[in-house]
Amino acid sequence: MPAGIDSGDTAWLLAATALVLLMTPGLALFYGGMVRSKSVLNMLMMSFVAIAVVTVVWLAIGYSLVFAPDTGAGLIGGLDHLGMHGIGPKSVTGHVPTALFAAFQLTFAILTVSLISGAIADRARFGAWVAFAALWTLLVYVPVAHWVFAPGGWILDKLGALDFAGGTVVEVNCGASGLALALVLGPRLGFGKEAMRPHSLPLVILGAGLLWFGWFGFNAGSAVAADGKAAMALLNTQAAGCTGLLGWLLVEKRRDAHATTLGAASGAVAGLVAITPSCGSVGIWGALAIGLVAGVVCSYAVNWKFRFGYDDSLDVVGVHLVAGVIGTLLIGFFATSAMTDGPAGLFSGGGAGQLLKQLVAVLATGAYAFLITYALGKAIDKVMGFRADPDHERTGLDQTIHAETAYDHGVLGHGTVGRRDPAGHLPGGATTTLMHRADRESED
Amino acid sequence: MPAGIDSGDTAWLLAATALVLLMTPGLALFYGGMVRSKSVLNMLMMSFVAIAVVTVVWLAIGYSLVFAPDTGAGLIGGLDHLGMHGIGPKSVTGHVPTALFAAFQLTFAILTVSLISGAIADRARFGAWVAFAALWTLLVYVPVAHWVFAPGGWILDKLGALDFAGGTVVEVNCGASGLALALVLGPRLGFGKEAMRPHSLPLVILGAGLLWFGWFGFNAGSAVAADGKAAMALLNTQAAGCTGLLGWLLVEKRRDAHATTLGAASGAVAGLVAITPSCGSVGIWGALAIGLVAGVVCSYAVNWKFRFGYDDSLDVVGVHLVAGVIGTLLIGFFATSAMTDGPAGLFSGGGAGQLLKQLVAVLATGAYAFLITYALGKAIDKVMGFRADPDHERTGLDQTIHAETAYDHGVLGHGTVGRRDPAGHLPGGATTTLMHRADRESED
Amino acid sequence: MPAGIDSGDTAWLLAATALVLLMTPGLALFYGGMVRSKSVLNMLMMSFVAIAVVTVVWLAIGYSLVFAPDTGAGLIGGLDHLGMHGIGPKSVTGHVPTALFAAFQLTFAILTVSLISGAIADRARFGAWVAFAALWTLLVYVPVAHWVFAPGGWILDKLGALDFAGGTVVEVNCGASGLALALVLGPRLGFGKEAMRPHSLPLVILGAGLLWFGWFGFNAGSAVAADGKAAMALLNTQAAGCTGLLGWLLVEKRRDAHATTLGAASGAVAGLVAITPSCGSVGIWGALAIGLVAGVVCSYAVNWKFRFGYDDSLDVVGVHLVAGVIGTLLIGFFATSAMTDGPAGLFSGGGAGQLLKQLVAVLATGAYAFLITYALGKAIDKVMGFRADPDHERTGLDQTIHAETAYDHGVLGHGTVGRRDPAGHLPGGATTTLMHRADRESED
Repeated sequence: MPAGIDSGDTAWLLAATALVLLMTPGLALFYGGMVRSKSVLNMLMMSFVAIAVVTVVWLAIGYSLVFAPDTGAGLIGGLDHLGMHGIGPKSVTGHVPTALFAAFQLTFAILTVSLISGAIADRARFGAWVAFAALWTLLVYVPVAHWVFAPGGWILDKLGALDFAGGTVVEVNCGASGLALALVLGPRLGFGKEAMRPHSLPLVILGAGLLWFGWFGFNAGSAVAADGKAAMALLNTQAAGCTGLLGWLLVEKRRDAHATTLGAASGAVAGLVAITPSCGSVGIWGALAIGLVAGVVCSYAVNWKFRFGYDDSLDVVGVHLVAGVIGTLLIGFFATSAMTDGPAGLFSGGGAGQLLKQLVAVLATGAYAFLITYALGKAIDKVMGFRADPDHERTGLDQTIHAETAYDHGVLGHGTVGRRDPAGHLPGGATTTLMHRADRESED
Repeated sequence: MPAGIDSGDTAWLLAATALVLLMTPGLALFYGGMVRSKSVLNMLMMSFVAIAVVTVVWLAIGYSLVFAPDTGAGLIGGLDHLGMHGIGPKSVTGHVPTALFAAFQLTFAILTVSLISGAIADRARFGAWVAFAALWTLLVYVPVAHWVFAPGGWILDKLGALDFAGGTVVEVNCGASGLALALVLGPRLGFGKEAMRPHSLPLVILGAGLLWFGWFGFNAGSAVAADGKAAMALLNTQAAGCTGLLGWLLVEKRRDAHATTLGAASGAVAGLVAITPSCGSVGIWGALAIGLVAGVVCSYAVNWKFRFGYDDSLDVVGVHLVAGVIGTLLIGFFATSAMTDGPAGLFSGGGAGQLLKQLVAVLATGAYAFLITYALGKAIDKVMGFRADPDHERTGLDQTIHAETAYDHGVLGHGTVGRRDPAGHLPGGATTTLMHRADRESED
Repeated sequence: MPAGIDSGDTAWLLAATALVLLMTPGLALFYGGMVRSKSVLNMLMMSFVAIAVVTVVWLAIGYSLVFAPDTGAGLIGGLDHLGMHGIGPKSVTGHVPTALFAAFQLTFAILTVSLISGAIADRARFGAWVAFAALWTLLVYVPVAHWVFAPGGWILDKLGALDFAGGTVVEVNCGASGLALALVLGPRLGFGKEAMRPHSLPLVILGAGLLWFGWFGFNAGSAVAADGKAAMALLNTQAAGCTGLLGWLLVEKRRDAHATTLGAASGAVAGLVAITPSCGSVGIWGALAIGLVAGVVCSYAVNWKFRFGYDDSLDVVGVHLVAGVIGTLLIGFFATSAMTDGPAGLFSGGGAGQLLKQLVAVLATGAYAFLITYALGKAIDKVMGFRADPDHERTGLDQTIHAETAYDHGVLGHGTVGRRDPAGHLPGGATTTLMHRADRESED
């Protein structure tokens, strides 16, 4: 074994990487359950194709631009590891293999891109999304990750803001970008006028469960070690997810008279988002408070889209941007030197200095993400068209883009066994891939 | 890294904690698939809110009462760690961070509470359940966990009963409590008269799969180390789950002529329950036998509710109580000193002494759980009402309590695309949270 | 702790074992979503019963025949560990407990058997499948695993072929066996004539997500250590899964004009299959290439069944056999000594020697699996009948074999709340297990 590798730290990071990778399928189901049944497959596909596209970009160039030695100004890494050059089974980063560290970081990039798709549900052309995923990774994720996560990055090393697991890189980043893209594409047909109910809340809850599970890898894995810091990050994560859930349900109960399943899932996610940057710098009561604030505030923030008319369809802004900002800023209040080995927040004897740094980090990453994403979205729209055809949107993207329907329940107590078109044609004129295969054969 | 932390042991316990946390969403889906589609969300919500409520109670006081030094009589721990006082990134328990040990143990408490909800499916008021979850954690889970899991606890240290991963604390505890609560609430409307078929067996199987997966963390994690004991616990767990499944299916095939999916899932869970206390004290053949006995016996025990008229809706008694008792008692037969480093069972040259100890542990925890839970349930019923309104129960708790429906499949080959009430009102007069949001905005 | 155990390596293998076990429920859902709703439970059950049956066979005799010292010719292991004899908490293999190594290897056997079931969807008698699972494990899996995975096995030690995680043992093995069994049973009624659309693509995607997640345990766990080799295996796995997905979608887009969800899931699996043997011997670019080739080729290979008329229902041949062959052979091109610590492929300065060895390994395992499985299938068909009754097949195996239906959505916006037969009888005359229980009671 190469000198410097700790098998325990490596064991945890291997497991954590698997956990974070699972978050993207989890997110796909979480999002997929929330949309109408005519576009659930498209929602799933936006996440799945992001896994593939971001991975290729990351291995080709992204990893190097983030984690190769800084080029000097703290803005971007070098090209030393272009195409994973020089990284093999003997490469070590800290106490873990470099290939593992690169894989762990890759799963963060994948999830961040996938999160954005929630802002543009039901109305994006698939090819445009694929192009966006690749370019956004390069133009937005990569530089921001370098600033915050890489030695030499300006937010980490010069500014000194604290972000343990990606409140800025992941949450503010995807939230601000989601807002920009929602503005570029415009609202869904019927937005604000007709009900767009989640087609399957059990799917939403399944997704939320997988996300919660994976979040332990996300946050406690960010210690890149199996140590006391990882343990505290894990316990803080659990604490904040729980108070986020409770906060949201309390508002709902008081405001709407009903505590909903969607509210429980959303509140938990809000709390988990808010603790993402802060899990490594606050104590248990800080975590409980941060989750609660996020749950309460986000339960209101998800309504802003109706007030202001942007169609952030699945609440990437209302949950991820808002809770990401809350969690990053509250570090300035709740950070304790027992966790940070240094800076403390306002409530732990520190001054306002750390809060100011946190604010700068939020503003810089949020503004950068919003502006570049808006420009990128506009450019893609110009070149290839980003918005789906209105007819396609009305019929549903599953049939029109993917030539599939999510469900084919011939038997549901409706006596329709066998009642299907033998040629395999769906109502919308599309055919499934299986029949494509069969058709193709018979045409050959 | 603080002295005493082993990074390998910590890596496994981090992963195991994530695994056990996932068991509760897994259980929610397992239970959710078994109920009718009009109350699946309520079923899911009982588990999800338990995650949140139990976590807050645990961090505030529960952990301390279980694991702070015993107050003298072996009945309860002290208040040294009230509010997680004194626990930070440098605290160590055994070879792992204390915060991680606390998180691991927390996930057990969460699951136990969630398990109880299966006994009262489709008919509990949600607010009453929330109150119950908090109070039951404090009044029942916390003392029993102290008796069995904590140094100084009377069952562990004075009695000397063996319970590796919670046959008494989790299984007998939730089963006896489920029985008490089912008696307090009374049977569902139509119980024993009309069919109450699982609305989605794939959801049940998904839940069973996630439970099985998480059970490796539950049982092998209880070694609190990545060692040979953990390995044997894992292999025993797998063995017993499998013979439990086979035992149940064999009975079904012989008795009913059909081996069912629900039987396979139930049999696996029965085997996994029975091996929970015993996985650390028996060998492979003991594990195979224990699982088989549990699968066979529980396949009959789930019918007792029809005979005796208590509506243990999703078989918490028939599976968890019965298999928990089986697994805890059979330690008295199958324990080997190769595993226990000491006591042996009747089949391995030990006397009846260990069996007697096991029996006392089962009776003490079962009786305590039943009595306190019955009193607590009655008290909550008196103060706020525990049983849902009959009209609500008939319509389904999803609409009446949570203002949601689980599924909204506009497109299912039935030509209903777009055929929905634009105001977003459900048949029952309730509206979804999403429309609440929209309505609220338009009312502002 | 016994001398020789590394807690970090053990921690990772504990987690990896849990991950691989989860692959079988994941596969069950992946397969279950692909079949029609009248036989989804049967599909799930074939995997679940395989978990149980294979485990018992493995513990009783399988583990010993694979991993006890070779009996001399490199063909089979001995009986030293019959019934897990001599294996306890202190037994060590490499740096991990032997019981854990045995459990990890067991999960491979389970998955391989379950994979075969996809070739015979919707038409197998359940009892015949149970018998097949037990006998196939013994007659096919056990010897092939010994050849490839065990010290002394002829493919590993004499031939010197490279197969890191089971391209031959798992993928070629299940694929060739699936083909044989599909020929024994013959095609589904209506195969090639009527559309057999996946009844739930979200279930397929969920299954694919769980498979991908578990595959990290499968491949990186095969290092049996938490080290740099495991890290590279994990990163290679991710890379190939992604290019497999992209390759399949690119073909679909060009050929059929639509990139489908089923294609994305299938492509990812194809890539993951192909990297299974090769993840421990190639670099990142090799992995990217192998995945891409697999995705492209398999997107065509799944149509062969229509051309040649064998009903490999869920594409075990088209994906697992084909991608397994691709991945095993491409080692001969892409292997680098940086990963293998020895042999290199054609593209890395090695000769054609390694490629030839790979070819022999593929041919030997494929031919053996096909022939023995064909004979075994024929024998079972003769003795007890393997093919379900045509009436049962038409009605669906869920009702006829398992006396259940997958879904019972009384409430789906169709106003059917409560509209169910109070006697619990399904249209097909079958009754659910729950009603069996109730009926039995009332009959007592």
